[in-house]
Amino acid sequence: MQLGADDLHDYAQGCAILGSGGGGDVDAAVLQARAAIDASGPVEVVDIDALPDDALVVPVSGWGAPTVGIEKLGSGGEGAHLVAAVQRWFETPVTAVMAGEIGGGNGVLPVAVAAELGLPLVNADGMGRAFPEGPQVSMHLAGLSPTPVFLTDEHGNLVVLDPRDGNWYERLARAVTVAFGGTAMGADFVMPARTARTATVRNTVTLALTLGRGVREGGVNAVVEAARGVRLISGKVVDLQRRTTKGFARGEVTIAGTGDDVGRMVTIHVQNENLLATQGERALAIVPDLIVLLDEATGSAVATERVRFGQRLTAVGLPCAPVWRTAAGLAIAGPAAFEFTHDYVPVEELARG
Amino acid sequence: MQLGADDLHDYAQGCAILGSGGGGDVDAAVLQARAAIDASGPVEVVDIDALPDDALVVPVSGWGAPTVGIEKLGSGGEGAHLVAAVQRWFETPVTAVMAGEIGGGNGVLPVAVAAELGLPLVNADGMGRAFPEGPQVSMHLAGLSPTPVFLTDEHGNLVVLDPRDGNWYERLARAVTVAFGGTAMGADFVMPARTARTATVRNTVTLALTLGRGVREGGVNAVVEAARGVRLISGKVVDLQRRTTKGFARGEVTIAGTGDDVGRMVTIHVQNENLLATQGERALAIVPDLIVLLDEATGSAVATERVRFGQRLTAVGLPCAPVWRTAAGLAIAGPAAFEFTHDYVPVEELARG
Repeated sequence: MQLGADDLHDYAQGCAILGSGGGGDVDAAVLQARAAIDASGPVEVVDIDALPDDALVVPVSGWGAPTVGIEKLGSGGEGAHLVAAVQRWFETPVTAVMAGEIGGGNGVLPVAVAAELGLPLVNADGMGRAFPEGPQVSMHLAGLSPTPVFLTDEHGNLVVLDPRDGNWYERLARAVTVAFGGTAMGADFVMPARTARTATVRNTVTLALTLGRGVREGGVNAVVEAARGVRLISGKVVDLQRRTTKGFARGEVTIAGTGDDVGRMVTIHVQNENLLATQGERALAIVPDLIVLLDEATGSAVATERVRFGQRLTAVGLPCAPVWRTAAGLAIAGPAAFEFTHDYVPVEELARG
Repeated sequence: MQLGADDLHDYAQGCAILGSGGGGDVDAAVLQARAAIDASGPVEVVDIDALPDDALVVPVSGWGAPTVGIEKLGSGGEGAHLVAAVQRWFETPVTAVMAGEIGGGNGVLPVAVAAELGLPLVNADGMGRAFPEGPQVSMHLAGLSPTPVFLTDEHGNLVVLDPRDGNWYERLARAVTVAFGGTAMGADFVMPARTARTATVRNTVTLALTLGRGVREGGVNAVVEAARGVRLISGKVVDLQRRTTKGFARGEVTIAGTGDDVGRMVTIHVQNENLLATQGERALAIVPDLIVLLDEATGSAVATERVRFGQRLTAVGLPCAPVWRTAAGLAIAGPAAFEFTHDYVPVEELARG
């Protein structure tokens, strides 16, 4: 399957939906991907099963607070710089690029990298959504080490981290990202295809395309149907709290229902991503399930940093990838991991009662 | 020539003298070097001319404020970690270790690394003394690039920096060093012997040994004689200003003369190293010449962070390596580089009148 310039809009809309409000704004990444595809042609999307066992797969992601990312465009050379360093370190050619997280701009960025380098894009990612913290990826759940970690920026700096453990990884990666000016492009969990087959969330590139096409052709209902999700509320943003602390965008969005939802108030709790939807004391959707805010005017998913007071939105809850509903998945990406006291209940069960 | 456990005391005393007050305290590095030599035998000191053209020479140094270094001992595995990363990056075995700066603990640390790894130590360094800033090394003067830069710490973290330019190098290296907890062991300016022959300050390991033996056998006079230096004052510390800002130890030490020097007051201006000695308006010794404070009780050179109120000291000025007296050398390590307004005059000329 090929991903060409004509697919980018739908794909990016799908990534924005899977971002659950996070993963970085898609617009800048789309510009970069479009330029790369215009210059080098469409990107081949490959199934991991089609790759040789030893083929090196490189997950790439944008790092840093999304509120910085909007203002800071990449230069376009980061991918080549990053992949060259990976090849040097592993003394092996890189076979394919993968999205570290499919959600938001981070799902689109690897398309730009793949196009620039003439490498295929793997039909998988490490989350099936977006998450704010480094270890919240399926490769970590599968017991893989993220290191060595490769970081680059739009100035042409390159840093390789081989930290002692996960805490040092976070500490050093944040120090470098801050020194870069707030954002970086990174590669971690570099792995052979043999490992990627079981350690990733599969078919998420095609899922993003399906969701993006769905919302364009059938609006909110099509998204809910395609992802077997739940409509949470349609209404207007009446309160908006937002702060950037320790590199995370945190806040709360309160939506007052309109139409059939008049009289209801739903609050969305945010840490880079939308993590919890509540109506009074009652939870309507809980991380790791996805909570997506769709703009009524445009049909697009709205990233947390783009939510505006007075905006008309529909909030939907979508079930996460099955790996996150295991005990191990919930331990690292369930409500307790974000200091919420709610027990996790799947969004489709919450909707039933 | 071999450097064994019995030579360590003299060698470290010589490094402390060449430190001009800086380069980090020698005591911790001596402990580490002694343990490594006890375990693995003495270190071979080699002339660069004896190495094959392509032999890879790795300059190693301790990084960070010396006031942190005193409290933070290395674990002993840093050298192996660093050299393994260098070999991986360059795909070439490392032939020899060198001191990035011979002054202070940084002159002794490479002895520990060489012993641990069974590698020879090159009879040269990048300064012939100690300097506070990254670019103040002879390899930089020779037009070499410091990158890639390898940094490790006592926890087992490893970071490779391939920065865009010198400013980014300083910025990223400082961010990583701070994240490490204030100190790091680093390797930069990795180069083949062919290049090292002209880009380094030669024979400084033997110079350190000569000075260390000299001070033990003949006291201050032997040091002044061996290094063709100048006695500046003998007296007592009567004022001491000290502050750690932006990772540098800064301050002033004022010495009131005793004996033949009664009635004279000399002030030493410090930024990690002793940089300027003045008597009233008159300069007695100016960076890049060395200013060394020798303890009257022990005969040892005193690191800036160990100077105490009331301590009896003799200050001596020693001529720097000739490379620092060139126009290019003075531009990066002369008085103006430290925001002093004095014109540089060699210490032996200042003494004449």
